[in-house]
Amino acid sequence: MSRILYISPLVVHGRTFLEVDPAELRSGNTLTSIGFTRGPRHLEYHYYETLVLPDLVRTIAAAEARGFDAAVIGCFYDFGLHEGREIAENMVVTAPCESSLLLAASLGHRFSIIVGRRKWIPQMHDNVVRYGLESRLASFQTLDLGVPAYHADEAETERRFVAAGRRAIEQDGAEVIVLGCTASAGFYRKLQAQLCVPVIDSALAAVKQAEQLIELRDRFGWSPSKIGGFESPPKPEMAGWNLADGYEPADVTSLWDVVGGAL
Amino acid sequence: MSRILYISPLVVHGRTFLEVDPAELRSGNTLTSIGFTRGPRHLEYHYYETLVLPDLVRTIAAAEARGFDAAVIGCFYDFGLHEGREIAENMVVTAPCESSLLLAASLGHRFSIIVGRRKWIPQMHDNVVRYGLESRLASFQTLDLGVPAYHADEAETERRFVAAGRRAIEQDGAEVIVLGCTASAGFYRKLQAQLCVPVIDSALAAVKQAEQLIELRDRFGWSPSKIGGFESPPKPEMAGWNLADGYEPADVTSLWDVVGGAL
Amino acid sequence: MSRILYISPLVVHGRTFLEVDPAELRSGNTLTSIGFTRGPRHLEYHYYETLVLPDLVRTIAAAEARGFDAAVIGCFYDFGLHEGREIAENMVVTAPCESSLLLAASLGHRFSIIVGRRKWIPQMHDNVVRYGLESRLASFQTLDLGVPAYHADEAETERRFVAAGRRAIEQDGAEVIVLGCTASAGFYRKLQAQLCVPVIDSALAAVKQAEQLIELRDRFGWSPSKIGGFESPPKPEMAGWNLADGYEPADVTSLWDVVGGAL
Amino acid sequence: MSRILYISPLVVHGRTFLEVDPAELRSGNTLTSIGFTRGPRHLEYHYYETLVLPDLVRTIAAAEARGFDAAVIGCFYDFGLHEGREIAENMVVTAPCESSLLLAASLGHRFSIIVGRRKWIPQMHDNVVRYGLESRLASFQTLDLGVPAYHADEAETERRFVAAGRRAIEQDGAEVIVLGCTASAGFYRKLQAQLCVPVIDSALAAVKQAEQLIELRDRFGWSPSKIGGFESPPKPEMAGWNLADGYEPADVTSLWDVVGGAL
Amino acid sequence: MSRILYISPLVVHGRTFLEVDPAELRSGNTLTSIGFTRGPRHLEYHYYETLVLPDLVRTIAAAEARGFDAAVIGCFYDFGLHEGREIAENMVVTAPCESSLLLAASLGHRFSIIVGRRKWIPQMHDNVVRYGLESRLASFQTLDLGVPAYHADEAETERRFVAAGRRAIEQDGAEVIVLGCTASAGFYRKLQAQLCVPVIDSALAAVKQAEQLIELRDRFGWSPSKIGGFESPPKPEMAGWNLADGYEPADVTSLWDVVGGAL
Amino acid sequence: MSRILYISPLVVHGRTFLEVDPAELRSGNTLTSIGFTRGPRHLEYHYYETLVLPDLVRTIAAAEARGFDAAVIGCFYDFGLHEGREIAENMVVTAPCESSLLLAASLGHRFSIIVGRRKWIPQMHDNVVRYGLESRLASFQTLDLGVPAYHADEAETERRFVAAGRRAIEQDGAEVIVLGCTASAGFYRKLQAQLCVPVIDSALAAVKQAEQLIELRDRFGWSPSKIGGFESPPKPEMAGWNLADGYEPADVTSLWDVVGGAL
Repeated sequence: MSRILYISPLVVHGRTFLEVDPAELRSGNTLTSIGFTRGPRHLEYHYYETLVLPDLVRTIAAAEARGFDAAVIGCFYDFGLHEGREIAENMVVTAPCESSLLLAASLGHRFSIIVGRRKWIPQMHDNVVRYGLESRLASFQTLDLGVPAYHADEAETERRFVAAGRRAIEQDGAEVIVLGCTASAGFYRKLQAQLCVPVIDSALAAVKQAEQLIELRDRFGWSPSKIGGFESPPKPEMAGWNLADGYEPADVTSLWDVVGGAL
Repeated sequence: MSRILYISPLVVHGRTFLEVDPAELRSGNTLTSIGFTRGPRHLEYHYYETLVLPDLVRTIAAAEARGFDAAVIGCFYDFGLHEGREIAENMVVTAPCESSLLLAASLGHRFSIIVGRRKWIPQMHDNVVRYGLESRLASFQTLDLGVPAYHADEAETERRFVAAGRRAIEQDGAEVIVLGCTASAGFYRKLQAQLCVPVIDSALAAVKQAEQLIELRDRFGWSPSKIGGFESPPKPEMAGWNLADGYEPADVTSLWDVVGGAL
Repeated sequence: MSRILYISPLVVHGRTFLEVDPAELRSGNTLTSIGFTRGPRHLEYHYYETLVLPDLVRTIAAAEARGFDAAVIGCFYDFGLHEGREIAENMVVTAPCESSLLLAASLGHRFSIIVGRRKWIPQMHDNVVRYGLESRLASFQTLDLGVPAYHADEAETERRFVAAGRRAIEQDGAEVIVLGCTASAGFYRKLQAQLCVPVIDSALAAVKQAEQLIELRDRFGWSPSKIGGFESPPKPEMAGWNLADGYEPADVTSLWDVVGGAL
Repeated sequence: MSRILYISPLVVHGRTFLEVDPAELRSGNTLTSIGFTRGPRHLEYHYYETLVLPDLVRTIAAAEARGFDAAVIGCFYDFGLHEGREIAENMVVTAPCESSLLLAASLGHRFSIIVGRRKWIPQMHDNVVRYGLESRLASFQTLDLGVPAYHADEAETERRFVAAGRRAIEQDGAEVIVLGCTASAGFYRKLQAQLCVPVIDSALAAVKQAEQLIELRDRFGWSPSKIGGFESPPKPEMAGWNLADGYEPADVTSLWDVVGGAL
Repeated sequence: MSRILYISPLVVHGRTFLEVDPAELRSGNTLTSIGFTRGPRHLEYHYYETLVLPDLVRTIAAAEARGFDAAVIGCFYDFGLHEGREIAENMVVTAPCESSLLLAASLGHRFSIIVGRRKWIPQMHDNVVRYGLESRLASFQTLDLGVPAYHADEAETERRFVAAGRRAIEQDGAEVIVLGCTASAGFYRKLQAQLCVPVIDSALAAVKQAEQLIELRDRFGWSPSKIGGFESPPKPEMAGWNLADGYEPADVTSLWDVVGGAL
Repeated sequence: MSRILYISPLVVHGRTFLEVDPAELRSGNTLTSIGFTRGPRHLEYHYYETLVLPDLVRTIAAAEARGFDAAVIGCFYDFGLHEGREIAENMVVTAPCESSLLLAASLGHRFSIIVGRRKWIPQMHDNVVRYGLESRLASFQTLDLGVPAYHADEAETERRFVAAGRRAIEQDGAEVIVLGCTASAGFYRKLQAQLCVPVIDSALAAVKQAEQLIELRDRFGWSPSKIGGFESPPKPEMAGWNLADGYEPADVTSLWDVVGGAL
């Protein structure tokens, strides 16, 4: 009954796999996965996030206007999460890092996050701190692999994941592993079998948290507080400034590249 | 399809309301609520928790043996949570404080917890710290009301809740309110209407988290890590010591006082 | 000898005062102040930041290409600071909050930040934490005044600043006051006289830090580390993707509204 | 003149050594060591603590009734410490972890705790945090040895202790070592000689702190604050509920296994 | 049997009361109280501490040479504590703030420190943080009274102490009160009676901790670790530099003003 | 136009190099470097700091009386920094550790400090914490080299610096390196070339911060807050006590050993 939009905030054309299998949704819920027709092909650099951010946030607003119940941001940097919760009046917005950490926190004492390159760690570490969960972080571990290489040689990637997971478990005291990139899709189950600890796929975590938050919103009225950081901008002010005119395309959905599901 | 046991770890006879309305469960799931036939009538004192703890943890073990999918601990002190996750081989265990905080963390920047008496704060504050979320805590606010008085004069209790919530919001910067006692059942919706921020009923939060964790466990195999603090005690060791004999009753279910649902 | 670009990342047309008086620069240095010809007129909402961010970061890149020695971001949310340090190969980038806090840290034991509305606090608090200086923060105090109202009735604004400063000093233990908005320009000197503690104007702090960092870079080679979070995106990758084409205008400087100084 | 009860909260029959040599007490003080006649033989699992906790806390209450001046909990998990300080009206209650850490804090900059197995670390780490001393913790180091094995091959155990201590000192910066299990009794002196840093035997630390707290209570009236977490449960309430009847044996002292000293 | 030197590191002539009554020592132990014949008459300013520090640290060295078992620093700023533990080869050194905090930590969940003037707070707060116990600090409260005024009108001082203690307990959640100045001597017992929580006299706490640490050193060899911050300077180096000659008087004991006890 | 006094707080006779090359000052500013004619030859031990501290703080007071605009403390322990800011009425006082850390904080996500011996770490770590920047500290790394050996075999010292820097970067995640001793003068440039990250020479950082703070003071009136920890002692009180007489030499400048610049 609920409609969820999964946004890979980058150019996805040519990609044939989906980060989240719609079969993993609750019965009755539907998942639409989109990418963009312009922008970068991965998001390792903040500059790339910068370029994409307005398309992402405007996509979140457009999703609410089109009646989606939730928008899920498909990047472990979680960029646009707080902005999305501000712009959305009532739609659920989730992102992989927050979702994974709030889940990992109840599955063990300390978690480690496995990333591709050390470049990513500062922004992600800042997010762990902002989410308030730094004391539960055992470590970051690195694959020494850029995003585009994750699926180049999957056997090698898996080997590195296992090695990084072992270091996290044995040297850093991790009890739970979080895969710190949505490009890790497809690996968690094999790693879980080899490492014998929960291994969180962050895109799945974000989609499932979205379903849960939709239900809590609908049943109990629990949705982001609008008296502080998530207070939405006043529509009259935006209209008065003709804000929408300044940035084109006027209809951001023209940029959507629908990969799975239906609009 | 999933069966959840809600445990009020105290003597409940004579109580006619349920802390969690079974109608709030996902379609197909069932909730059984129990209390105990021995022990204290409220749990403000650690000594009372102490007496009840073995019955609670053995109840968790018994619930798993009887095929429940989750056990929910019905006390905001969350006592027995880590012990329960240790003894359970695969069943989900949740508790109100952890569930509420992990939820509140995604709904706003800071949350406040409203408790009955300052006596409760140290143990609850320790839990906030253990869960790693102290940086998200705006404050504790107090009703100056013991548990037995929560439902003595509900209009007065509501008035105090609203006043405490206002202090939290205006003086302490809270954006989200958590009701820090499962005896707060019944109040959240009115408070939410008056305070205009999300007001979390912690018993509901714990039950809904239980449903979610059951689904995540069944779909993805994500359940508490067994390589650290939640490693279960070895059955042969317990058998060799005749541990079960030392403490009676041998069958803890003889102490259960079923309030709602079916065993 | 050094050229500094001060960027007010919003539409400034009609504004006749400058946030930073060029007379406050070191002898020989020059300051150019710009705003944008499109976008919001204030930045209280994250959505407004979002829209402006690409213009801001591309402006930083353009400034480096045009030979500026530093770019200063004119908004206390400091948005674009880390992104700017990433995209800049060697140009200095500063922002008001970071500059003020690093200065305040050496002037007293604890500082308070005076903001306009509580809406601003979560993002600013996150920044204090990210900059590592939360233990030096005495409090946030609020004027209950939106940015557009700062200069509507300056006597009233001053009165509120003094009252907020007194609360910070007397109740919260602040020894230093930071004015948490670049729209506070013009107030610090009077407040300093009345409050008898240092009162930091954050735009001035950011410009003066920029001058200092230029000198340190030129003398000693000290500039942002490029091995982690500030690693710049690879030019060949961006060229291969025709990234510049995706977003227009191709030449961001066409959006610049030069208020003071010379390009 | 003061009487101290040392409680090994497990079945000790057959054990011939005492964790604390009565000769280490202040002249005139007496030490009685007891174990229990039912329960587990070690306490590595929280479930074992759970079973024993009511006997432990009721033992603390019984000790006060019998005129003991202090009860010392003989397990480094410190379980029952806060519960004991709540139930005791005026008797001193101490436990090994808290005692060792408060001592270690004045002997050097950072301390490391050597435990048997990683299973123990989460609960012990939580205690370090609750006691407020996490910033003084250099690390946990592990022997990879269960409690029952500590005295199986003492030369091997000593060898592992020295290796773990060296890692703590050389890699983690520890200046002080704490032996994180009361089963470590007998090792501290040899380790101290080899490691050349203070090595705290936690059972001794707890007994000596008990003596000190007795003296401070008697001289200056300094004993646990009764206005917060340590507020005792009201006797009329417990009597009204017939709480004592619910749990047997009515007289917990029937379970005591006196190993040393006199009742 | 043990000899303790209590050092009031200022000019005490004309003072007729002792901060620590020798009757409060363990039977057999002796206390000698000294002040200095030069220097300031109170220590509110860091400059005053500065002038006195060498006399204090050299006094500690002289005390060890004369066979004292412990030196107690009689100022709540604890200046000279780490320096004293460095220069002492084996003598115990304690100071009021550290002693009080390590004691308060076991008596309740949070403590407040009552100081004379806000001027004192930054250095004392830094010490709380260095000792690792900031998470246990409820607040500082201020008497608005300089040290020389503490005993000018003792009824007024007591009235202010009670008011400050009430604020700490009721507003800040303190369960324990620490009197943050050794000039508070004489007040703790009356305050304890009125506030109904433990009220720590810091000079007494320091002397009693000294006695305890002497015993632990003598029984178990537990004394400050000498492999890190407390490593003593090498005597040959000091001799080679004729360090002693540079500063006079050569024999610091010529500056001692013995108030109580015997050298 | 501004005059800066660089104080090496130890006996420097025989030393022929200056820690700070006057050519590194802003045009028009002058640097005078002094040492002392009495005291230790290095400052690894707190006792040595103790002896020198009054000469240092009185030198700061004398420098202000002689019209210097700033005093820079030439030791990475930063001892005398807070005392100096208290005694100085309006003169700028800086020290290497604070200056380096406030600079490093804007150059990367985490910094490491390279020290000579582990002995130094506790006091320096305490300073990092006091300055509020612990969350930005990646690690301390050690050369295993005492101060006097830094320039004994400079090739070997450089080799150790490079090795320590590599460990910091690769194992600890440092993006910036701080050389934690003013005796490191001369090394930073070569290390920077080899390590490819900013390497901060702390003496240079302190002198440059002094110049900046002079300018900010003169332009904007920003100087240390005098309402808290830096409140200066009252001159009448000092005069009334004849404080100056108690300690000789009355004129501390008689102890100055001028190495470079002019008085």
